[in-house]
Parts: sequence; structure tokens; C-alpha cells
Amino acid sequence: MKAKITITLKNGVLDPQGAAIESALAGLGFDGAQGVRQGKVIEMKLAETDEAAARATAEEMCKKLLANPVMENYSIEILA
Amino acid sequence: MKAKITITLKNGVLDPQGAAIESALAGLGFDGAQGVRQGKVIEMKLAETDEAAARATAEEMCKKLLANPVMENYSIEILA
Repeated sequence: MKAKITITLKNGVLDPQGAAIESALAGLGFDGAQGVRQGKVIEMKLAETDEAAARATAEEMCKKLLANPVMENYSIEILA
Repeated sequence: MKAKITITLKNGVLDPQGAAIESALAGLGFDGAQGVRQGKVIEMKLAETDEAAARATAEEMCKKLLANPVMENYSIEILA
């Protein structure tokens, strides 16, 4: 199964990358963009064949390696 | 409106970050993960109030700044 894991900074955590994008956009004339935040998306194929097992594995990966639970949120999508 | 822009490397473009994640996962015992690819997700609030205009603005931002169309794909989700 395919997993798509989205990792974003928690609200309140400073996001300098997002701020840089926001000011670059403003410099190009896109001054309507506000609150820009940048996160990561990680896609992979998993050996698990049922959705619940795949989700559990992806969740464990997030906890052990992919996300920093102190300052990041993650969401997991399992695709067929 | 809120926009969520996902930027991923095109197939065939080398992804050393994804490869590093894959081998780190294997080192932790997650050897069922294959084809790991890492991308970016950018979230922002847009001043546009209708969906079509917001999508057009986000698309222009991708072309002008956020994505490198030579090696990256992007997808845009507009949320209420």
C-alpha cells in the first residue's frame, strides 16, 4: 500500500522558511498571501497489505523517525 | 481562502533525501518501506474570496516561485 505522510509545524512554532516564502511572494507582487507555513510530505510504498496495519506502521515511523512530536504534527493518508 | 500546495519531485529525478529516509527506516527495522520520496507542502491564506481566483493565484505562485517545473510537480488544494 502507499502511504502519504504530511508533517507540519505546530501552531506557534516559528517557521522561518514560511516567513521567507511569504516575503518573497510579497516581493513578486503576491501581497494577499498570509500565514505561509512550510511542511514536509513523505510518500512511500509499504509492504503491509491491509490499511489498518499500514497506518499503524506509518504512525510508528512518524513517532520514531519522521516527525518531532514536540514541535510537529503529522497526518497519515493510506492510498490503495 | 486557504491554499495547500504540495510539491513533489518528478519521477526519475534523484531524491537523496528520500533515499536517506529509506535507509534510516531500514536501520530502525522498517524494511518494508520502499520508494520513499520527500516533497514539500506549503500552506497559506489567500486574500481571494472565490475558489477559481484563489486557484489561479496559487498556480501563478507555483510557476513563478514555489516550484521548479523542470524537476517538480505541484498540486493545489483550495480549502474553504
